[in-house]
Amino acid sequence: MIDFTLLKTAQTRLANATREQKDSALKAVCGAIDGQRVSILAANEKDVEKARSRGMKESLVDRLSLNHARIDGVIQGVESIIRLDDPIGKTIAGWRTPNGLFIERITVPLGVIAIIYESRPNVTVDAFALAYKAGCAALLRGSSAALESNQALTTAIKEGLSVGGGEVQALALADSGDRGEVDEIISARGFIDAAIPRGRRELIQRVVRNARVPVIETGEGNCHIFVDASADIEKAVSIVENAKLQKPGACNAVETLLVHKDAAAKLLPVLAKRLGGRCELRCDDFSRAALGDISPKILVKPAEESDWEAEFLDNILAVKTVTNLDEAIAHVNRYGTRHSEAILTNDLRNAEEFFDKVDAACVYTNASTRFTDGGEFGFGAELGISTQKFHARGPMGLDVLTTIKYRIVGNGQVRSR
Amino acid sequence: MIDFTLLKTAQTRLANATREQKDSALKAVCGAIDGQRVSILAANEKDVEKARSRGMKESLVDRLSLNHARIDGVIQGVESIIRLDDPIGKTIAGWRTPNGLFIERITVPLGVIAIIYESRPNVTVDAFALAYKAGCAALLRGSSAALESNQALTTAIKEGLSVGGGEVQALALADSGDRGEVDEIISARGFIDAAIPRGRRELIQRVVRNARVPVIETGEGNCHIFVDASADIEKAVSIVENAKLQKPGACNAVETLLVHKDAAAKLLPVLAKRLGGRCELRCDDFSRAALGDISPKILVKPAEESDWEAEFLDNILAVKTVTNLDEAIAHVNRYGTRHSEAILTNDLRNAEEFFDKVDAACVYTNASTRFTDGGEFGFGAELGISTQKFHARGPMGLDVLTTIKYRIVGNGQVRSR
Repeated sequence: MIDFTLLKTAQTRLANATREQKDSALKAVCGAIDGQRVSILAANEKDVEKARSRGMKESLVDRLSLNHARIDGVIQGVESIIRLDDPIGKTIAGWRTPNGLFIERITVPLGVIAIIYESRPNVTVDAFALAYKAGCAALLRGSSAALESNQALTTAIKEGLSVGGGEVQALALADSGDRGEVDEIISARGFIDAAIPRGRRELIQRVVRNARVPVIETGEGNCHIFVDASADIEKAVSIVENAKLQKPGACNAVETLLVHKDAAAKLLPVLAKRLGGRCELRCDDFSRAALGDISPKILVKPAEESDWEAEFLDNILAVKTVTNLDEAIAHVNRYGTRHSEAILTNDLRNAEEFFDKVDAACVYTNASTRFTDGGEFGFGAELGISTQKFHARGPMGLDVLTTIKYRIVGNGQVRSR
Repeated sequence: MIDFTLLKTAQTRLANATREQKDSALKAVCGAIDGQRVSILAANEKDVEKARSRGMKESLVDRLSLNHARIDGVIQGVESIIRLDDPIGKTIAGWRTPNGLFIERITVPLGVIAIIYESRPNVTVDAFALAYKAGCAALLRGSSAALESNQALTTAIKEGLSVGGGEVQALALADSGDRGEVDEIISARGFIDAAIPRGRRELIQRVVRNARVPVIETGEGNCHIFVDASADIEKAVSIVENAKLQKPGACNAVETLLVHKDAAAKLLPVLAKRLGGRCELRCDDFSRAALGDISPKILVKPAEESDWEAEFLDNILAVKTVTNLDEAIAHVNRYGTRHSEAILTNDLRNAEEFFDKVDAACVYTNASTRFTDGGEFGFGAELGISTQKFHARGPMGLDVLTTIKYRIVGNGQVRSR
């Protein structure tokens, strides 16, 4: 059983903590994590052994694994959050009404946040620290695969909060391991002010479909790059290579390349050579023809309808040739997930039309979609990428964990009509 | 069957309409409503007759009724929305990243909005006009009692849109009268970007509980006024009178008066005299005693637990004496609905503590809670009062119908890590 009331009470106290109080508690958390490396790594080792014994893919085992360098990274993440401005208590607007009332819009914490996530244990610390900085309590529900690691990290965090004079109860780990626990969390109306699922599509969709509390949908990215007729081919090749191969498993990696028919013959052979043996291409007929004689090192298959819908998260790129901008925009709006979309062009009107008509959180001109990231945007830290329009959209920084409160000060005003 | 695709397609076109295009369409709508007064009033007369024949309370019949003056008011409402700035296409932030990317946060329409409301037909026009100004399509689901009126108003609006070169399909009236229609609307994930229920508690709670699309909870207001020991008694009496009696059926009317024990003997007898026979008081023992000998014209009953929880929406005021500020704040946070709360005091520290610790959309010092209203706040028009923290809080103006889109412009940037 999760004690929601304990979280809410702690959050209510934390809501009015000063920046100094929150930052010194977070500094103490850094110290405690540093001091408990041995127990944290030991706990993580148990998770890793169990995962291997259960045949977890090595790529996932790697996500699960901690070492001294990664713990350094976790601590540096908290330190970067400490350096961020306090998002709470800001007057974002203020005005006087004709009858002399003074009205201010002031930022306050959103409340109790639930983060439901998968294997990476560093999310445990990141999510807690972001929430704490914003005066929010955090209820964390990690994967059972990371249970020992998350428990050790939570123990360290709570010791740090206690040492630093913070709100120890502003963090809770939902660690029963019981699957029903997620449903309990996303049904807790009045206690959970927002639930943020982070991880595989199945997890996110399950939370979105069953939640009774506000949810922020994250992460699914079927991203496109449209190479227009006027694009700089050399830059286009580098951007597509980067967007596809620099981190193929990321939600902001490109999945489908759309090429203007007048650019296909210039772009595709050079691109194929650049991608070498590192990427499979799934091409429509026109694109396949435009590839010409390609080095045998690159695998090319005919594209199927399912390829336009796929978020490969792999070294696979779907390629389609389009006859004009409208066709590119229509394809993006039909198959895209409203995440990150790019046009590579030197035509200003086309760039503007692409921005105006493409419905996505982030629309790029002449840059890689890989920049859709809180860190790259300069937010210092991120809670994920919102692919919805409600409350939050795009990379989510601290401000997503805030709401507003109106302060109205008068001297006896009453309403006449 | 509601044609959600038609709405979404129209909204996509409307999203990039200029302010001039939207305003001239709305001007034509004013003209069409003015020109169709006869058919609108005839339709409304049918609704009113049916309502009376079914024994509807006269207070509700009055809400349902239209006349020339009310149609003038409806038209003036649209004209005031025409005068509002366009909320779309604003760059609300812009910065350059170290690698030279230029990032802008730009406002765009939220999308397709569903408004589910009760008897007042003027909401049909208000809600449509606000949505249209924000580039949103509106799906309106009024009560069956207002069906003829809403159909006549919708006909006029669509004629106006057609005359004014607007998006005729950006408005749809869900008028099957079938109760299941509401469930169809609030389950339409991917088509409805936000649903806003307006009306009785039962309606709002039913929508909130069953929705599969984002919902903005509105209106429920169990509002408090705390009269501190240092309050100006004469101003306090006027503020409480105004907050209770100027419009008792409004969600921002006060329901419970909290009085500091040191103010009770000064305040309550004067207040009782001022309220005269117009209001019933439900008092705890201390307050009842402090009232002293009161004019027989005022009805006084002992307060019960249920009175602290009640949103009376009537000429009834619950009265409780508290020993200090903490007790007042605890009562407000326990029984309040996070809508509008007021402290009347001359003690600056108490005013600040009340603001900091009370969890509500609007927190007042020395003014009537009745000012929680989009018009009074200067928003020109309102979609209701949000009592939730997610996406919108407090009086909702046009900005609630917007979301953001990031425009990122580079010159070939790729991500290195």
